[in-house]
Amino acid sequence: MKRINVIKVGGKVVEEPSTLAALLDRVTALDTPVVMVHGGGRSATALATRLGMETVMVAGRRVTDRDMLQVVTMVYAGRVNKEIVAQLQARGVNAIGLTGADMNLIVSTRRPSVPVDYGFVGDPCKTNAGALSLLLDNGYMPVVAPLTHDGNGCMLNTNADTISQTVAVALARAGHSVTLTYCFEKPGVLANPDDDTSVIGSIDPATYRQLKTDGSVGGGMIPKLDNAFAALDSGVESVVITSAENLKGGTVVRL
Amino acid sequence: MKRINVIKVGGKVVEEPSTLAALLDRVTALDTPVVMVHGGGRSATALATRLGMETVMVAGRRVTDRDMLQVVTMVYAGRVNKEIVAQLQARGVNAIGLTGADMNLIVSTRRPSVPVDYGFVGDPCKTNAGALSLLLDNGYMPVVAPLTHDGNGCMLNTNADTISQTVAVALARAGHSVTLTYCFEKPGVLANPDDDTSVIGSIDPATYRQLKTDGSVGGGMIPKLDNAFAALDSGVESVVITSAENLKGGTVVRL
Repeated sequence: MKRINVIKVGGKVVEEPSTLAALLDRVTALDTPVVMVHGGGRSATALATRLGMETVMVAGRRVTDRDMLQVVTMVYAGRVNKEIVAQLQARGVNAIGLTGADMNLIVSTRRPSVPVDYGFVGDPCKTNAGALSLLLDNGYMPVVAPLTHDGNGCMLNTNADTISQTVAVALARAGHSVTLTYCFEKPGVLANPDDDTSVIGSIDPATYRQLKTDGSVGGGMIPKLDNAFAALDSGVESVVITSAENLKGGTVVRL
Repeated sequence: MKRINVIKVGGKVVEEPSTLAALLDRVTALDTPVVMVHGGGRSATALATRLGMETVMVAGRRVTDRDMLQVVTMVYAGRVNKEIVAQLQARGVNAIGLTGADMNLIVSTRRPSVPVDYGFVGDPCKTNAGALSLLLDNGYMPVVAPLTHDGNGCMLNTNADTISQTVAVALARAGHSVTLTYCFEKPGVLANPDDDTSVIGSIDPATYRQLKTDGSVGGGMIPKLDNAFAALDSGVESVVITSAENLKGGTVVRL
């Protein structure tokens, strides 16, 4: 059993050189082993636009036809992932970039085409925690792109929040003590969305119900917190929601 | 000490679905552990063209400015690498895609800007054979894209033949018995370039000199054979030049 920090960093953090540098400095300074999971949606949309392709989102998720699958594979596994890996290597961290296909890390089932046909989008069904343990035990830091595979030769676009949760749960089930950190552009869950100093220090199921009732949290924060509680229910020790500048602060979600 | 087959597959083989499938079927059937190294230049040029970028080649090598570095990183580490990895996984081979930045596999020095400024192009100077051994010992097949890093946060475009040679030599120096296979669109080194049945079965330094003198080999085959002899001089056991359809045949180069 080992303490492991699974850190999910959103596209906005990793796609801006200065915030990425700040994040990687802080990740490098942590004393627990880290598995990083990153996004990259804005860069994918930008490349698609340059290629004359329209980006279609439904309920915040990208519709991924065959051409868009090539775009996200190139951007997530190529450009964004290697930028992070090379920058970590420059800081003396022996990073290794992975998708769900590499080491058979995450197998997904393609999402059913009803009610919405998202195309080549996958929901994780099997995770190889042993592969991550092998890398961590030998001093490597896995950096996971938001892509999985179907086991039949096809890559699948997969939400980075879901991947980080999947990885955290698999490591917890393998006996590790796991903290899952969602790192985004705000310093935590805010009592007042317009006031960055109003970070809620701690949320449990009772306070979460209250926050939803009084309307303090809403929008994109609801699925994030739902995911957080699902991860806790599956054995993850704690979930932290914070910013790149403050990896050790933010909002702690616990049962 | 272990027998290891380092197989370099050219862009033309991996970028055409039917030849890629044929190659991967044959790689899957081999009974020695394999490290695969692939190209992808045609796809990179195609993407660059779609993005309105001009591809400039000097002496067969791509001039790689900052934009072109993003293109080759997306195509080699993203699209081509993940296509191969996912297809190998579908065949039950536990593949893992890598660039030289991942696991600090290959550090390069950026090529000097005189006589030709190739931009972000690197020549390997340090290889982490231990990382490859760790993966091979645990049943993973490394699939290496033709990219390295400078150790200071920058990816570098690096010739795939050079990478395969570098990897083969590093594994030989680590005590393994290494065969380096260059897999391209011809069945081997041909005595008559227009006759695919004229494969020369075996080449040693004396026959190589003779073949150069009588003009039987020329063009792109000369640097390939020079690389082959350099690898043999550095401890690689044998070099095989063959096609995707005939991994166990072709031309064997020995000292």
